[in-house]
Amino acid sequence: MNDCFDKYSLLTDFYELTMMNGYLEQGLDEQIAYFDYYFRSIPDSAGFAISCGLESLVSYIQNLSFQEEEINFLRSKGVFSDKFLEKLASFKFTGDIWSVLEGTPIFPGEPIVVVRGKIFEVQLVETALLLFYNHQSLIATKANRIVRAAKGRAVLEFGARRAQGVAASVLGARSAFIGGCLGTSNVLSDFDFGVPSAGTMAHSWVQVFSSEYESFLAYARTYPDNCNLLVDTYDVIKSGIPNAIRAFDEVLKPLGKRPTGVRIDSGDIAYISKKARQMLDDGGYPDCPIVVSNSLDEYIIADLLVQGARVDSFGVGERLITSKSSPVFGGVYKLVAIEAESGIVNKIKISENVEKITTPGFKQFWRLFSRESGDALADLVTFHDEVIDDSREIEIFDPNNTWKRKTIENYTAKKMLNKIFEAGELVYKMPSLKEIRDYCVESVDYLWDEVKRFEFPHEYIVDLSYDLWKTKTDMIKELEKKADA
Amino acid sequence: MNDCFDKYSLLTDFYELTMMNGYLEQGLDEQIAYFDYYFRSIPDSAGFAISCGLESLVSYIQNLSFQEEEINFLRSKGVFSDKFLEKLASFKFTGDIWSVLEGTPIFPGEPIVVVRGKIFEVQLVETALLLFYNHQSLIATKANRIVRAAKGRAVLEFGARRAQGVAASVLGARSAFIGGCLGTSNVLSDFDFGVPSAGTMAHSWVQVFSSEYESFLAYARTYPDNCNLLVDTYDVIKSGIPNAIRAFDEVLKPLGKRPTGVRIDSGDIAYISKKARQMLDDGGYPDCPIVVSNSLDEYIIADLLVQGARVDSFGVGERLITSKSSPVFGGVYKLVAIEAESGIVNKIKISENVEKITTPGFKQFWRLFSRESGDALADLVTFHDEVIDDSREIEIFDPNNTWKRKTIENYTAKKMLNKIFEAGELVYKMPSLKEIRDYCVESVDYLWDEVKRFEFPHEYIVDLSYDLWKTKTDMIKELEKKADA
Repeated sequence: MNDCFDKYSLLTDFYELTMMNGYLEQGLDEQIAYFDYYFRSIPDSAGFAISCGLESLVSYIQNLSFQEEEINFLRSKGVFSDKFLEKLASFKFTGDIWSVLEGTPIFPGEPIVVVRGKIFEVQLVETALLLFYNHQSLIATKANRIVRAAKGRAVLEFGARRAQGVAASVLGARSAFIGGCLGTSNVLSDFDFGVPSAGTMAHSWVQVFSSEYESFLAYARTYPDNCNLLVDTYDVIKSGIPNAIRAFDEVLKPLGKRPTGVRIDSGDIAYISKKARQMLDDGGYPDCPIVVSNSLDEYIIADLLVQGARVDSFGVGERLITSKSSPVFGGVYKLVAIEAESGIVNKIKISENVEKITTPGFKQFWRLFSRESGDALADLVTFHDEVIDDSREIEIFDPNNTWKRKTIENYTAKKMLNKIFEAGELVYKMPSLKEIRDYCVESVDYLWDEVKRFEFPHEYIVDLSYDLWKTKTDMIKELEKKADA
Repeated sequence: MNDCFDKYSLLTDFYELTMMNGYLEQGLDEQIAYFDYYFRSIPDSAGFAISCGLESLVSYIQNLSFQEEEINFLRSKGVFSDKFLEKLASFKFTGDIWSVLEGTPIFPGEPIVVVRGKIFEVQLVETALLLFYNHQSLIATKANRIVRAAKGRAVLEFGARRAQGVAASVLGARSAFIGGCLGTSNVLSDFDFGVPSAGTMAHSWVQVFSSEYESFLAYARTYPDNCNLLVDTYDVIKSGIPNAIRAFDEVLKPLGKRPTGVRIDSGDIAYISKKARQMLDDGGYPDCPIVVSNSLDEYIIADLLVQGARVDSFGVGERLITSKSSPVFGGVYKLVAIEAESGIVNKIKISENVEKITTPGFKQFWRLFSRESGDALADLVTFHDEVIDDSREIEIFDPNNTWKRKTIENYTAKKMLNKIFEAGELVYKMPSLKEIRDYCVESVDYLWDEVKRFEFPHEYIVDLSYDLWKTKTDMIKELEKKADA
């Protein structure tokens, strides 16, 4: 694994440092605070998102320390006290972190990550935590949509060249794999994270030879066991497929080998794939898969399949690796409580924009599953120490429209936040990439189809417990009273 | 500078390696080939883009070698010959690279980078080159649009938390600075590349204290010389601005200091900024700047200014760092020629999609400037050894609509591609970040306003020289004849 993705102590917004320096000046640096990472809306107006980014966060936290060069750099800014810089030089994260696991379906308003610790340290990690979860959840979510659109056909991540930077390409490929892609073109993502990488040829291979046919012969001879030919350098139907069939006949047939595919990277895929399928079938290669890779996403793939395109696997590039149709996952990290001698003091942030009002308190959230079908029925956000007794029925209600009530019975309640760090030490056994991917598949499986619809999906229920709702409502009322006074 | 951004030898699509292994098997690995990096359309349907990514490419090329661990990893894939892996173990880039400078306005169809070398090596660098230029040009282009919309007001890059990975945040901030931003919130981008970083406080600072006023007092006492207060934690007009003014009066006034700003991060900026301006003016702080930072981009900034918003500087986040409205820069890297004993053999790639047809040949391109106004009049793509004699008038024509002709006189012609690497050695003195930024400002300045319009800009002329046009047209005709035969 590449160290580059772990050591980013200065990956922070400047204001985290000015605040930390200020907390120290004000004698508040040891103040225990709680922050929630949560998000307000789902990219592509989808019904759910997939959480991703925990493994990067773990690496980052474990490597979080400042070298002399970094301290000197900060000193040169002329705004930080020596006391602060000394404290930073011996910095080690000593807080607690709870998070949902990578691959978990998540919904707006839930605490996806909860961080507890000294304000000095929990403030520092804000930017990196946000960046990891926002980016990687974005791509895992998009990949899962594209994979579902492909209805069982393989989807490969091909976007490195259009990714927004190297980390976007490498961790994007990992996120896409978690979301359901079968592999990537990105070799570094394989080296760093074990995402299976694969690939065969580009147009340049075909162009270097004196003819397309010569180039295909050469490729088949070099790779008789993995002969997948790119057939659109000149004209798929007039030359690409005929030359591919000739090369298969000439090189593979005598060896008793079968081609692993032809790839089409341009033109009208619905039309061309059907033509190509017919030609391959007629030419004796009904088993030769057709791979396509031309500006695809979930919408285009769904359309192609409706039109009867004969595609066996999809290579998806820029529209996956940037989540082009919706390239931002807007997760935020907000202070929700501090500890006083009297106990936890809840904190709220009010806003003109109602959806920007935070939910106060140290929290947990639960997913309620039908004991009958195993389907997820609703999520309930509670204070951290509340307990849901799933041997009894439970009444939940919409926190904004409290008349919307629902009684749930015959269910199991599962806590979704797992303790990852305790007093700065990793206390969770991190799953392998394959385990994460399998867990994602299982988890998406327990969601209702209505929630998985691409357009206008059903809104999954995320309610607050009565205690939490009451606390939040009372705090808003009190602040309004104060402001009007 | 952080090594992390330089050492990415395995940052490559798997097919580059299978092709390289194949070239070696076929005895073609020493074949000299020419590749062009170019793009077909501009993000946001803009009139021009800004080139960025060269410095990353230089670092990458200089560090391009394979360690034992990487070779062993590739061996484990079971598809590469020992001969290939040995060759890779001693790999060093020995080719030539020409590129436009960072900060240059660029247009579709121009060769932005030309790479010449053994096919074995010029194939390898494809993915990284594409990734660097596509990502960084995207962000520099977007930043330049946003900065132009702000009409002289400061624009700061605040997007790290929503960036697509760490490199996107750090190199995005650098690209944004080149495009015209004044600085960034991202400390790592300052440490690695010298992009000026700054920042003051988040909502959490305000929430940690017993009241907003207390939090402002504490901040003013800690930072009397840079007191910029975030005034929207509860209510900008009812509490934020009044508390800010009280804190300025209480702490700064006795010290003879002035505030450096108030920041508003939510609500209707047009309305609130006008109210806030009035209150600050009335409160004795007409010199206190107003900074806003709520989901901004060039369109919203232009609208706010039309509506008379009283804003002195803009902090721009997700919509800049991801180029949200158009998050892909679609540059491609295509083989355009090879060398034979007889000389250069031009190569072309045909496609159903006409815009995907490549322009063959080893090329240069020129920018023609009016001697009178200094404005850029047109670009002309030529063979590399063609010479434009700008002491005579020149007739240029649209390669697709050859009746569109234009005679240009009284102009200077400037070669836009600079030799960066010769036989693998850096031969260009790389400019400083500040020089790049200044060059970008000057360069955008020489473009006509019509090209700079945000909506439906004038299409800048990019023509081919007669020789190049003739060569391309003849090659297409010949291939069509062959395909029909």
